[in-house]
Amino acid sequence: MAILLFAFLASVLALLYAAIQSFFVLREKDGNEKMQSIAKAIREGSNAFIKREYKTVFVLAFVIAVIVALVLPHGLVLALGFAIGAIGSALAGYIGMMVSVRANVKVAKKAEKGMHEAFRLAFKGGSVTGFAIVGFALVSLTLFYYAFGNPDLMFGFMFGASLISLFARVGGGIYTKGADVGADLVGKVGLNLPEDDPRNPAVIADNVGDNVGDCAGMGADLYETYVVTIISAMALAFALNLGQAFIVLPLAIGGMAAIATLIGTFFVKLSKNKTYIMGALYKGLVATTLISIIGFYFLTYYMMHSLALFYASIMGLVVMAVMVIVTEYYTGSKAKAVRKIAESSNAGAGVTIISGLGYALRSSFIPMLVIIAVILSSYYAVGGSLSLNNFGLGVYGIAITAVSMLSVAGMILSIDAFGPITDNAGGIAEMSNLPKSVRDITDPLDAVGNTTKAVTKTYAIGSAAIASLSLFAAYKANLTDMLGSLFIQQFQIFNPLVLAGLFVGATLPFLFTSFLTNSVGVAADGIVQEVKRQVKEIKGLLTGKARPLYGRCVDIVTVISLKNLVLPGLIAVLVPLAVGFILGPLALGGLLLGVILSGFALAFLMTISGAAWDNAKKYIELGNYGGKGSDAHKAAVVGDTVGDALKDTAGPAINPLIKVENTVSLLFLALIVMYHLL
Amino acid sequence: MAILLFAFLASVLALLYAAIQSFFVLREKDGNEKMQSIAKAIREGSNAFIKREYKTVFVLAFVIAVIVALVLPHGLVLALGFAIGAIGSALAGYIGMMVSVRANVKVAKKAEKGMHEAFRLAFKGGSVTGFAIVGFALVSLTLFYYAFGNPDLMFGFMFGASLISLFARVGGGIYTKGADVGADLVGKVGLNLPEDDPRNPAVIADNVGDNVGDCAGMGADLYETYVVTIISAMALAFALNLGQAFIVLPLAIGGMAAIATLIGTFFVKLSKNKTYIMGALYKGLVATTLISIIGFYFLTYYMMHSLALFYASIMGLVVMAVMVIVTEYYTGSKAKAVRKIAESSNAGAGVTIISGLGYALRSSFIPMLVIIAVILSSYYAVGGSLSLNNFGLGVYGIAITAVSMLSVAGMILSIDAFGPITDNAGGIAEMSNLPKSVRDITDPLDAVGNTTKAVTKTYAIGSAAIASLSLFAAYKANLTDMLGSLFIQQFQIFNPLVLAGLFVGATLPFLFTSFLTNSVGVAADGIVQEVKRQVKEIKGLLTGKARPLYGRCVDIVTVISLKNLVLPGLIAVLVPLAVGFILGPLALGGLLLGVILSGFALAFLMTISGAAWDNAKKYIELGNYGGKGSDAHKAAVVGDTVGDALKDTAGPAINPLIKVENTVSLLFLALIVMYHLL
Repeated sequence: MAILLFAFLASVLALLYAAIQSFFVLREKDGNEKMQSIAKAIREGSNAFIKREYKTVFVLAFVIAVIVALVLPHGLVLALGFAIGAIGSALAGYIGMMVSVRANVKVAKKAEKGMHEAFRLAFKGGSVTGFAIVGFALVSLTLFYYAFGNPDLMFGFMFGASLISLFARVGGGIYTKGADVGADLVGKVGLNLPEDDPRNPAVIADNVGDNVGDCAGMGADLYETYVVTIISAMALAFALNLGQAFIVLPLAIGGMAAIATLIGTFFVKLSKNKTYIMGALYKGLVATTLISIIGFYFLTYYMMHSLALFYASIMGLVVMAVMVIVTEYYTGSKAKAVRKIAESSNAGAGVTIISGLGYALRSSFIPMLVIIAVILSSYYAVGGSLSLNNFGLGVYGIAITAVSMLSVAGMILSIDAFGPITDNAGGIAEMSNLPKSVRDITDPLDAVGNTTKAVTKTYAIGSAAIASLSLFAAYKANLTDMLGSLFIQQFQIFNPLVLAGLFVGATLPFLFTSFLTNSVGVAADGIVQEVKRQVKEIKGLLTGKARPLYGRCVDIVTVISLKNLVLPGLIAVLVPLAVGFILGPLALGGLLLGVILSGFALAFLMTISGAAWDNAKKYIELGNYGGKGSDAHKAAVVGDTVGDALKDTAGPAINPLIKVENTVSLLFLALIVMYHLL
Repeated sequence: MAILLFAFLASVLALLYAAIQSFFVLREKDGNEKMQSIAKAIREGSNAFIKREYKTVFVLAFVIAVIVALVLPHGLVLALGFAIGAIGSALAGYIGMMVSVRANVKVAKKAEKGMHEAFRLAFKGGSVTGFAIVGFALVSLTLFYYAFGNPDLMFGFMFGASLISLFARVGGGIYTKGADVGADLVGKVGLNLPEDDPRNPAVIADNVGDNVGDCAGMGADLYETYVVTIISAMALAFALNLGQAFIVLPLAIGGMAAIATLIGTFFVKLSKNKTYIMGALYKGLVATTLISIIGFYFLTYYMMHSLALFYASIMGLVVMAVMVIVTEYYTGSKAKAVRKIAESSNAGAGVTIISGLGYALRSSFIPMLVIIAVILSSYYAVGGSLSLNNFGLGVYGIAITAVSMLSVAGMILSIDAFGPITDNAGGIAEMSNLPKSVRDITDPLDAVGNTTKAVTKTYAIGSAAIASLSLFAAYKANLTDMLGSLFIQQFQIFNPLVLAGLFVGATLPFLFTSFLTNSVGVAADGIVQEVKRQVKEIKGLLTGKARPLYGRCVDIVTVISLKNLVLPGLIAVLVPLAVGFILGPLALGGLLLGVILSGFALAFLMTISGAAWDNAKKYIELGNYGGKGSDAHKAAVVGDTVGDALKDTAGPAINPLIKVENTVSLLFLALIVMYHLL
């Protein structure tokens, strides 16, 4: 009870902080009329997309909620949870976006005053997103558990959150890269309109994309990962009968880390030597991590009397650190891989792609080794130490590792949401013809955004891997409750049903991302056709005398994104149900594991290659290998285009895919088992 | 005994047929002096590479053989088997290549007489490879088993074959695409020398590549797959104590299919309407399949008294058919995917790549569904029908499915080896300035080669997936013998050690192919630098007055390929040993499965995307979207370059990788278990 109160108060504190920060952001100045009109166009486009996306998605969600309510035991509570999770996830995305589309123009304005001021405001904007999301997640989790007192009744909550986050990731992902690639291509199909040029009709759609993809998509994604991770740990403690303290520990860790994050924000400071912006952000992350460790020590040792759990919680922070380091190693703006890829661009676009794939293919190996080391050590430390060598308990250690990794999501999100704000600020500065001194401030801020985005993605996929293992353990625990431990012994890798499920699961991320990748091409083509049409039909557009119809481009990508969101969404929900009902719970268990196994490596391949190509292009633009406009640069641009689709659409969607597979399976497990027993 | 004799006689028949066909090929005319000198250069380059490759590889193989002989129980027999397998695999590659480098020029000469004659000769050349490899494999398997009478003693044989095939695939793969991409790039770095132009110093290296990659590499690979599949089925029958008839059935199936293939070759005929060359080849495949089915019926029903085994054997042929159909669906020269990729090339190289990846990412899903359907049905048909519902026996059904699929390898290889012969013939015709009418014959023959190569690769990966499951079953059966069935029950997907192994395994194909992909870039760069040097230093080279130093280019790629073959080779051998010795047999079992799970989808991604890009380029060259030289064509060339590295170097090497993981594990399993018991 005291712990619940603690978690509740911490979440209220986080929400308060978000409100205060948002107050400070909103009272900043908006800049001149031109800037405001551009910002307004971006804001309207983003709102229009989100409204239509949510309308589409909520129809589907409503149908599912009704099915859940009617078909499942405790259906009403599960449906209520589903609704809360879905709304929470949607809200998380929406808040992030709302702040971003307001802060962008203010940062552009602030950049007139200097780097320090612009940086501070942009981070303030990012932290609103971070704290709002973590605060909302924690407060709703705490209240829901307080109201119903049974983690198993929270499976609907999980599923709602992951389903919406999947749609937000897919829809936003197709939108953002369809618009981005389309806007880029416009220059190449003979129209000669640069990316951020106000005469380019796709320019607003492109800026809208940053907000709906990187803000709304990422916000929904991390909200969901946070919620799912905590619930799965609670459900595991419940299924293993570990007692109340173990059930609420994940909430306490979340609360503790929220406080640590709040303190950590004060450490985010640009030093006098202004060049290392990334360092200023990392300072906040390091501070948050250290304070969290101290907090976790008190929670686990004094409260739970177990240093083993403390150890497990530290492991989560270790995984986070490794993900950051590996991402920097392969994609940092001065990384060896990035420089090699840039160098290979001299031999043409083909070699750029080959070289980038070469590095990205290996990027998952070290993270994988770290994850298994952490799994094994958390498992044996907790399973071997807590009361009577209960190795069944080892999985709870893994779950706590996942919770601890996710607990600092507030800081990661603050850093991440910083990116699209500065990206937009740069675009607004360009389009409003602000003096070059302003771009000199926003450009380096924007460049950092590239790395922070990549870091957040590998953080998300790393946490998804561990979190889904604790979901997987919850699946096992629940199935044991239903069918007994003798049945569970059939979960052998030699069992043909398990094998079949593993095969389906391992192939699923490939199938799923296939549709996303193709949709980017379709959306980009839609943009190109529309721009061609406008150039032809609107007189004076190319000379800047007539205003292009920005809204039409926004509409077109919106429609294409929403149309192409349905099929992958259905695949994600229906494949596990089909496997469960046709082949049974053994195959379904295999599927859940298979998705993680190949999804992990595939997500790294896509995320890392994209970020590395992006920074290789930027490296050339700094003047290396002939600089902008050289043949090497043209080759690097091709790499960047391919990378856009992989790193911002296909790759990040694997994360919610993995979670949706797990949550839909947990939710419908009872029904599947009943079906097979009949 | 009678069965052994039958298999032996069938294998001798196959070898005789290969000898006769080779006699007919060799007595054909070689063409004029210029053609002969070019063919000689290709032959010498190929020989030089193979000699150096085998020297490098055999040093390593010798060390391993000595370790095996000294360290393992029955070490001498295992080492003898290892030597036979290694030599057999090397020989298989060598034979295929020797025929190819002699037949190429003869086909070019024959093309003067017309399509029918050229086609017949090229297929005759291909069938030498097909029958020699199957004949050698079957004769050595039969004799070795006759001599030692224990399938477990054949594990060394398997490992030898797969290790050499891995090296042949990796070395040949890096060579062929390093040279190909390098030769292509030469035109792009401002030298303006087309690919098959005799003034291009890289032209011979490029043609050598076709032989050492597609012939020697593919030959060694399929020899190994054939050998490994049969031995694993035999070992499984032995470990499950099914009796002598079950042990030798795989050899009988091999013998029966060899005879069916021999008859099938007479059905390979170009109809009057000459355009559908692929159809002529498929006629032979269909005939072989139908005759095999009849043969399998007699073998399984009259000899083994089991229609269930007949069913399992048919399933193998079904998988083969599906692989062919799916490959045609995504990569056929008129496939929808190919046309869409060609169309997307209008928007630039980035979209070409995105579009190709989009299709290839989904290409593994249907094959995967078919494979699990086949696994489940073979398993339950055999396990449920043969004496007393012995489901432990079901895996033997899966093994027979794999054997049956592999049994028609002779026909697949004949069709495949046809490809590089016609490819070289075209190159020789071009370089010797033969009349256009000759190219009009060799070009369509060559185009078919593209599809047959893709078909063989998906066939190889499909068979590898099923075969490795029977290896995996042999791993389990052997481990049960050593540690008892109680230990085996720990092989649950929830066991953290199994999980750790699965993770390592699933990430391994990514890591492994990473090095191959990068090596292609390095080799291509080596070629480009050397060509630049020659153009600068050799006066009169560009005007055709001075002869370029072809040999230097051959040497450079050879050295780079061999240098870059060692690391991936070591990774393939050492990772399973490390996992086995550090984490134990549970984790090792997980690794074996993990490699198959992600390797299957990754191999499809790489193979299908590459073949589709290649044919998209060819589709544009037919005059679509502006034809050769258009912007769309330039974009498609980038796709082709990326695809070269993926489809001919990285993708096909996953197949032997999967097998090496399994064979090295089986071979060292006893030692690993002993180590952990101490």
